[in-house]
Amino acid sequence: MTSVTSSLWRKLIAFQIYGANTGVGKTVACAVLGKAFLTRYPDWQINYLKPVSTGPTTDADDKYISRYTGHKADCIFQFSDPVSPHIAARVKPPSDQQVLGRVSEELFKHARSVITKGKYGITMVETAGGVLSPAPSGSLQADLYRPLRLPVILIGDHRLGGIAATISAFESLTVRGYDVEAVMIFESGKLGNTDYLMKFFNTHKLPIFELPALPPAGDISTLQESMVSYYENVSQTSEISRLAQHMVDRHFVRLKNLERMAPEANDVIWHPFTQHKGRADNSILTFDSAYGDFFQTYPSPQPVGYDHTPEESRPIENNASLLQSAFDGSASWWTQGLGHGNPELSLAAAYAAGRYGHVMFAGAIHQPALSIANKMLQGLENPRLRKVFFSDNGSTGIEVAIKMALKASSTRYGWGNDSKNVGILGLKGSYHGDTIGAMDCSEPSTYNEKVEWYHGRGYWFDFPQVKMRKGAWVVEPPTGMETNFGQRQTFKHLDEVFNFEARDSTKYETYIEEVLNRLIKSEGRKFGALIMEPVILGAGGMIFVDPLFQRTLVNVVRKLGLFHTPFKQPLASTEIRAGASSAWTGLPVVFDEVFTGLYRLGRFSAASFLKVHPDISVHAKLLTGGLLPLCTTLASQSIFDAFISDDKADALLHGHSYTAHAVGCHVANVSLDKMGKLQQEKMWQIFQQSWQISDSSSTVTWSMWSKETVTALSHKEQVDGVVALGSVLAVSLYDESGSGYTSDVANNLRDALLRESHDHRWIIHSRVLGNVLYLIASMTTDGETISTVEKLLLTKLHDVGNSL
Amino acid sequence: MTSVTSSLWRKLIAFQIYGANTGVGKTVACAVLGKAFLTRYPDWQINYLKPVSTGPTTDADDKYISRYTGHKADCIFQFSDPVSPHIAARVKPPSDQQVLGRVSEELFKHARSVITKGKYGITMVETAGGVLSPAPSGSLQADLYRPLRLPVILIGDHRLGGIAATISAFESLTVRGYDVEAVMIFESGKLGNTDYLMKFFNTHKLPIFELPALPPAGDISTLQESMVSYYENVSQTSEISRLAQHMVDRHFVRLKNLERMAPEANDVIWHPFTQHKGRADNSILTFDSAYGDFFQTYPSPQPVGYDHTPEESRPIENNASLLQSAFDGSASWWTQGLGHGNPELSLAAAYAAGRYGHVMFAGAIHQPALSIANKMLQGLENPRLRKVFFSDNGSTGIEVAIKMALKASSTRYGWGNDSKNVGILGLKGSYHGDTIGAMDCSEPSTYNEKVEWYHGRGYWFDFPQVKMRKGAWVVEPPTGMETNFGQRQTFKHLDEVFNFEARDSTKYETYIEEVLNRLIKSEGRKFGALIMEPVILGAGGMIFVDPLFQRTLVNVVRKLGLFHTPFKQPLASTEIRAGASSAWTGLPVVFDEVFTGLYRLGRFSAASFLKVHPDISVHAKLLTGGLLPLCTTLASQSIFDAFISDDKADALLHGHSYTAHAVGCHVANVSLDKMGKLQQEKMWQIFQQSWQISDSSSTVTWSMWSKETVTALSHKEQVDGVVALGSVLAVSLYDESGSGYTSDVANNLRDALLRESHDHRWIIHSRVLGNVLYLIASMTTDGETISTVEKLLLTKLHDVGNSL
Repeated sequence: MTSVTSSLWRKLIAFQIYGANTGVGKTVACAVLGKAFLTRYPDWQINYLKPVSTGPTTDADDKYISRYTGHKADCIFQFSDPVSPHIAARVKPPSDQQVLGRVSEELFKHARSVITKGKYGITMVETAGGVLSPAPSGSLQADLYRPLRLPVILIGDHRLGGIAATISAFESLTVRGYDVEAVMIFESGKLGNTDYLMKFFNTHKLPIFELPALPPAGDISTLQESMVSYYENVSQTSEISRLAQHMVDRHFVRLKNLERMAPEANDVIWHPFTQHKGRADNSILTFDSAYGDFFQTYPSPQPVGYDHTPEESRPIENNASLLQSAFDGSASWWTQGLGHGNPELSLAAAYAAGRYGHVMFAGAIHQPALSIANKMLQGLENPRLRKVFFSDNGSTGIEVAIKMALKASSTRYGWGNDSKNVGILGLKGSYHGDTIGAMDCSEPSTYNEKVEWYHGRGYWFDFPQVKMRKGAWVVEPPTGMETNFGQRQTFKHLDEVFNFEARDSTKYETYIEEVLNRLIKSEGRKFGALIMEPVILGAGGMIFVDPLFQRTLVNVVRKLGLFHTPFKQPLASTEIRAGASSAWTGLPVVFDEVFTGLYRLGRFSAASFLKVHPDISVHAKLLTGGLLPLCTTLASQSIFDAFISDDKADALLHGHSYTAHAVGCHVANVSLDKMGKLQQEKMWQIFQQSWQISDSSSTVTWSMWSKETVTALSHKEQVDGVVALGSVLAVSLYDESGSGYTSDVANNLRDALLRESHDHRWIIHSRVLGNVLYLIASMTTDGETISTVEKLLLTKLHDVGNSL
Repeated sequence: MTSVTSSLWRKLIAFQIYGANTGVGKTVACAVLGKAFLTRYPDWQINYLKPVSTGPTTDADDKYISRYTGHKADCIFQFSDPVSPHIAARVKPPSDQQVLGRVSEELFKHARSVITKGKYGITMVETAGGVLSPAPSGSLQADLYRPLRLPVILIGDHRLGGIAATISAFESLTVRGYDVEAVMIFESGKLGNTDYLMKFFNTHKLPIFELPALPPAGDISTLQESMVSYYENVSQTSEISRLAQHMVDRHFVRLKNLERMAPEANDVIWHPFTQHKGRADNSILTFDSAYGDFFQTYPSPQPVGYDHTPEESRPIENNASLLQSAFDGSASWWTQGLGHGNPELSLAAAYAAGRYGHVMFAGAIHQPALSIANKMLQGLENPRLRKVFFSDNGSTGIEVAIKMALKASSTRYGWGNDSKNVGILGLKGSYHGDTIGAMDCSEPSTYNEKVEWYHGRGYWFDFPQVKMRKGAWVVEPPTGMETNFGQRQTFKHLDEVFNFEARDSTKYETYIEEVLNRLIKSEGRKFGALIMEPVILGAGGMIFVDPLFQRTLVNVVRKLGLFHTPFKQPLASTEIRAGASSAWTGLPVVFDEVFTGLYRLGRFSAASFLKVHPDISVHAKLLTGGLLPLCTTLASQSIFDAFISDDKADALLHGHSYTAHAVGCHVANVSLDKMGKLQQEKMWQIFQQSWQISDSSSTVTWSMWSKETVTALSHKEQVDGVVALGSVLAVSLYDESGSGYTSDVANNLRDALLRESHDHRWIIHSRVLGNVLYLIASMTTDGETISTVEKLLLTKLHDVGNSL
C-alpha cells in the first residue's frame, strides 16, 4: 500500500471516535464533546468528520451534530442503506486509499484553516459501527484507518454484555498499535459496567468518563427539546470538561515526547555501529510508528538531511503534517518482509505469548518450533539438511554453524588439540555477524580490526563480481587478476550469468586448486569449513559474486582428498551408505543465508541459484517476516553425527535461554506461510514481467526493481554499476575520494533522498555501505510504491550529480 | 495461582462455547449441537455444563438444554439476578480457583463415566455473556478458564455490528492462546455477517457454520412446539452434522499432533546442550501449552522419568487427564518472572507489533527503547551507568560488554596491537554465554573445552563459597586454601554474611593483591576487565560466592596503579572532574547480571548486594518478564568516552538486525513495571517474613523458599549444602561417584520429581547442574504453590534417599 502520512499538527488536535459496538452512542458522545470543546475553548475551531456513513441522509450523523452543536460537521461518503458500509457500498465502493486520502485531505484542510487563522482546532473523526466493522472496501475499519494512527476515544458499551464488548474492542485497537486515550460510556445503572471498566482500565492507565443516560424517548417534538437541554447540561459537567481537557493534554504530551526523544536518546542510548563524537540530537531519527513500507518520523527542529520547516512557517499548500512518511529503504536493516504493523503478525505473536509465553527448549518440543523446523527443511529443498538448531540472531546462528562445521572436520581429520588453530575458507568482503566467533570468520576490515579479541581465522578468496554497467551485465575480475579469472565478460541477460552449463569454469577451478594447494600443502594451514553468503555479500557492500565462482569453489572444496589426506577417521559407514549426496566431503560447506535467504532474492533458498546444496545453512532476518529475532541453523545428518558420542560433553554446547521461543517460532510460521502464499498467488508477477526474457518461458532471476530503472541507473555517469535481485537494489557510485566506508557521494545521495521534494508527500530513508547506496523493499511492497521510489531515486541522483 | 490441569482425554471430547456477545444464541447453539451429537453418535454420552449462570432458575440454561435435547445438562453456580456474574454473585462470590476446580471435577466425572462404560463422550461447557464478561470473582471469564484451554466454538453475532463483535471476540480469545476451532452463527440475512466472516476466517483456516433463524416468537405454548421442531430439523442438517464431525476430528488431530511431536522432534530438532546418542523419543517433553507456573505436558506412552499410564488402565480415582501439569521448576531456563501465558504481556507484544513491527535502530529512536533505557538506568541506582546498548541475549550482551571494557582499557593503557592478547579476570566456575567471545571469558570446563575455537583468555580466581549446612550459614574456603582465605566461618543469619562492616577482608585483599602482582608483574600478563556474576554463579552450579570476596576483588582491582603503570593515557580531564565515583580505575568492572539481576535474587540489582557499582552491567532473561529475547548492556560515561574519536571505525562495532526491537522493548517496559509493582505492593512480604530476623527491622536477604524448608533440607544426610536467595533454591547433593556434570544422585531426584505421586495432581519439572538440583520460581508464584513444591521436594528427597 502506498503511504498516507499519520496526521499530526501542533495546533490541530485530531482524534478518532471508535465504538465498542454499534449503537453505543458514538454520535451523541461526539455532540457532547463538541459542545464541551466549544464551551471550554470558545475561540477554537471545532470540527466533526464522519468519513463513511450509512442510513438515510436526513438522519445523517453530520447533520445531527451540526444541529445540536452548531460547529462544523461533514460526512465524506454517504450510503443510504442502514447496513454495514461494505454492504451499503456494494456497487461501487471507494477503495481504502480513496477513503484514507479523503480523510487525510479533510484533516489537512482543517489544519490549514487553523494555522491560517492563528487559532487552535479540534477534529473528531467518527467511525462507523464497531472497531472492526468492515469499511466500504471490505477491509476492517481499524485496519483501514491505521496509517493515520489518530489517538482514540473508545465509546464503551453500557448495555448487558458491554464489559466484554468494550474490553475486546480495546484489545482489537491495541493489537493494531492504536493509542486509546480515553473511554467514554453511558451510565449503566445496576449493570455496573462503568465501575468495572474503570477498575480494569486503571491498570492500563486509561481514564474512563461517564455520560448520563439519554432522556427517555417521548414524542418527536419534545425529544428534540430535551436533547437540546441534555447537550447543554452534559457538555458543562466537570466530567466531560475533564475529558476535553484530557484530550488536549494528551496531544501536547505526545508532541513533547516526540520532541524530547532525540535529545534524550542522544543522552542515554549507545547506538549500534555509531561514532558518537559530536553527534547532534537532530541526527537521530524519531519514530512515532510505522506501517506497511513507511516509517512515521518526527523530524527534529533543524534536522540534518531534513528540510522540514515548522507548520506555521511552511507554505500551507504543502500538504504535510508534523510527522513525515519515510519509505523504509533499508527494510529496517534487511529484516522486513510483510510490512510494519502487520496485524496478522501482531496477532500471531500474541497467540503464542498467550498459549505458551516462553517454554524452555532443552529436551522439549512445542508445536510452533516443530512446524517451523519442518517448514524450513521442506522449503529449502536441500536433501542434505536433516536437523534444525535454533538461536536468536544471524550472528549466533553463524557461531552455531561454525561449531558444527569445525567439530565435524576436526573429528574426521583427527586434529585433536590442533583444532584450536583451524581456520575457515571464505570470500573477501564477507561478513557474518558481530559476536567474536562470527567476526573471526571474516577477513580484517573496518568492521572488526579495531576489536581487541577479533582475529580473522582463515583465508578469503578474491572473486569476480557481477554488476550492470551501461545496460549490460558484466562479470568482472578484480583489477590485476585477469590472468587468474579471465577477462571481463558481458551478458545481455542476468539469467545467462546463471547458465552454468553454458559457461566455462576451468579457470576458476585451476585457480582455486592452486591456492588451496599452496595454503594446505606448502604452508601447512588447516581449514575446517567453507563459509559463504550465497550470491550477494550484504554488509560487504551488496557485492554480487559471480555465482559460477561460488559454485566452483564449493565443488573444488568438496573434492575428496584435497584436504588433509589420509583421513584419520574414514567416512562412517552410514555416510557411505547415504552416498555423496548427503555426507559432506572435503570440508563442510556453510551457507550464510541470513540476509540472502527466505525470498530476499526472490526465492526461498538463495543456495538454489548456485545449484549446490550446503551441509549447513543459516537463516534469520526475514524468518519472522520482520518482527523479531529468531534464527535457525540447519545441518546435514553427517554433520549431526559428528556430535554423537558416549560423552555428553561431545554434544553441541550451545543454547540461549530463549532458544526456539514460541513467539518467534509461531510468528515465523505465519510469516513463511504468508510469503509462500505471495509466491503461489503470483503476487510478484508484475515485477517478474519486467525481467522476462522474451524468448524464454522461465525467468531465473528477477527483481522488484524494474529493468528499466536499473538500466537507466547503470547509464548515469555517477554510477559505477548496479545490482538488482529480488527485493534488493544496490547502486555503486564513483567515489573520487576513494574513501570507501565513508563515501561522500553515497552519503550525499542518501541525504538528498531524506529531503522533502516540493512535489512529493514522502521521503526515502536509505542506508549506505561505503560508496554503495542500496534500497530493499518488503516482499509486500506494491508496484506503485516501487515505481515512485525509482522515480525519486533517479531525480535525486540527477540533482546530486548537478550539485557536484 | 495453583495449577488446574488442562483437560484432555482420549474418549471425552470437551470443548467450550464462547459468545461474541451476550444474546447471540449460545444456549440454542448448544442444544442444536447436543442433538446433532446424539443423532450422529447415538451410543455416546453427551453432556452439557454451565459453570456459572445468572437469571431465574426456572429459565436456566441447563434445564432448557435437557428439556430440548434429553441429554445430561448441569449448572454449577446459579445466581438469580439476570446481570453479569460479578454483580449477581457480589455477596459471596466463588473464587476463580473454586469455579475452575468444580469445572475440572465435573469434566473428570464425565471422563470417568465414559471410560468406565467403554464409551466416547462429548462435554460442551457453555460460558456466560461475551468472551471477556466478568466471572463471579471479577476476573475476565476467558482468563479464568484459560488453564483448561478447552478448544472453543465461538458463537458469532448475527446482528448489526456483529462482524466487528465476532472478530474482536476471536482476537481476545487468540491473545489468550485459545484455539478457536469453529464459528457458529445465526443467519443474518441482508446484513451479510456470515458471508463476510466466512471469507475473513478462511485466512485463519477457521470454518464457520450457519444456523437458521429461530422461529418467530408466538405465544408461549406454540413457541415450545416450534422450538422442538426447530431443534429436530436443524440438528439434522448437513451443516450442523459437519460441525459435529469437525469437532470430533479436531479432537483426534490434536491428540495425534501431541503423540507425534516427540518422535518428530527427535528426528528433526537439534536440541541445545544435548547428547543425542541413543536418545529415545520419550525422553522429549511435549508441551501442549503453559500457564502461570505450570507446563501442560503430554507424556509419551512410556516416558522416561514419567509414570503416567494411559487413562483406560489407570485407577479412575486418579483425577488426571492425558495432559500432565508440571511446575516449571527451572523457570524455563531462568527466564520466567510473570508466569506463562500472561495476557498483559501478550497484549503488550501485540501493541508494539501493531504500532511499529520492527524499526531499524541505527541512528534512530522509538518510545519503547527510550523508556526501557531510562527504566534500567533508574532501576539500577548505579550512578556510574549512563549509556544503554541493546542486543538480543545474554551472550551477545556479554560480547558487547567485553568489547566495551577491552577498548577502554586498551586505549587507556596504550596496548595497541598487544591488545589481541589481553585477558580478563574472573572467578572459577563462571559462565557468560555460548558465543565464542563470551565463552572465552570462562576458564576451560565441560561447557567449552571441546569447542574448537574456544580458548579461555584470562585468569580465574578461587573463592570461598556460602551455603547452609545443618541449619547454619557457612562461608567456606576451597579445600587446601584455608591459609589464603581463612578457616570456615559460621553465621546464624545470611544477613550477617552481607554485613561487610562487621567482617574482615584483610586476608582476601592480601591474597588478591599477591595473585595480581604475580600475574602482572612476574608473568607479564595483561588484563582488560574484571567480569563476574554478582552473588550467584548460575551455570557453574548455582554457586553462592562469598559476597565479601567479590566486593574485595572489585575494590582491589580498582586500585589505581596496580595495573600497567604508568598509564600511556592518563584519565581524561572529564573523568577527573567526575571523580572516582564515575570514572573507571584499575580495570573496567563488568557485572553479568543476566541471571542474577532484575528481581531474580529479590532485588532489581544484584550488584546492590555487594554495595559496589560496576562500570558495565549486562541484563537479560527476566528483562522481558520471561517472554522473548532482549538484552541491555549498560555502561558508564568513561567507558563510552573510550569510543569517542574522529575515526568512525573507533565506534563500538556491534549491532544485530533486531537491535532494540520494539516488541521486546515494550514487553520489557510492561514487565519491569509489573515486577516493580509487586515489590511496591509488598507481594513478597509473606516470603520475607520467614527470613525476618526477629531483632532487626530490615532484611537484607530473603527467599521465596521458606527458611523452614531450606533448614530442613540442609539437615538431610544426602545434602551437602543449600542455597536460597530471591526465587532461587539450589540443593547440593553428596555425590559418591564424584562425576560432577552427570551426577546420578541429582538426576535421580530430578526424575523422582517428574514422577506422579498418588496423592498429588501435578509434578515438578526441574533441571540439574552436576550434583546440584535447583528450583526457580516466577516472581508471581504464590505461597501455596511454593509450599506444595517444598513438600514434594522433601518427600521425593526422602524417597530417593531410601531407595539408594
